[in-house]
Amino acid sequence: MKDSDLPYGIEFTRLKKISHPKGDIFHALKASDTSFKGFGEAYFTTVNVGETKGWKLHQKMVLNLVAILGEVKFHFCNGNSEEVYSFSIGSDNYGRLTVPAGIWVAFSGVGKDINLVLNLASIEHDPNESINAPLERFSVN
Amino acid sequence: MKDSDLPYGIEFTRLKKISHPKGDIFHALKASDTSFKGFGEAYFTTVNVGETKGWKLHQKMVLNLVAILGEVKFHFCNGNSEEVYSFSIGSDNYGRLTVPAGIWVAFSGVGKDINLVLNLASIEHDPNESINAPLERFSVN
Repeated sequence: MKDSDLPYGIEFTRLKKISHPKGDIFHALKASDTSFKGFGEAYFTTVNVGETKGWKLHQKMVLNLVAILGEVKFHFCNGNSEEVYSFSIGSDNYGRLTVPAGIWVAFSGVGKDINLVLNLASIEHDPNESINAPLERFSVN
Repeated sequence: MKDSDLPYGIEFTRLKKISHPKGDIFHALKASDTSFKGFGEAYFTTVNVGETKGWKLHQKMVLNLVAILGEVKFHFCNGNSEEVYSFSIGSDNYGRLTVPAGIWVAFSGVGKDINLVLNLASIEHDPNESINAPLERFSVN
């Protein structure tokens, strides 16, 4: 279940929600998934409504991003042009974005309440492998 | 930062929350953590307030459980006696419970809103490696 319209080698994989009367279950990532590129670290990030975090480019880390609550609009740019591609995920469009290394990434909080993202990263956090640029570097819409 | 009062080889590791004006960051698990026993699958489970899910014993899977929202009371029993040990984690006691294979596990929703748990499991879901028992098998308090 890949959405092939995404550029720069980014993949969107729709994920299963399993209803349960005592509380639902939500898939995120399996080691046998083709988008799994190793486990380095899992962490959560939130982004408040109307705020945008970014830009950041990981030189080594592959991101597997799941927005479990709210709605988050991700912005991507490959740096060869100023063109920015945006894609929203969240509880209403539940799935995983797999982002290869070498892509500029920013993300905006859309949902009014908690916008909660899990990143299942292929390597551990290492400030030396990522590059930051100011939010103004590429325009997000 | 281990809490050594937990029985049956279960570990609690307090986790870092990093405040950020645009949205906070929450640690979950790193491959270099001693409680990391391999990556098989990441999935979320919720448990509604007042409900208890269980009992389940994994014969192979090591669980790494993080309650990112709400409050969840986990119940553990080793099956050698009827004694049940309970421990609550959640946004106010933020940390990770590492549960070795061979332990009976149940969990109850305590928070009034969403009680959301991430399991970073050492193997992929396999219905043949787990054993279920009715909630009445061991008494939860």
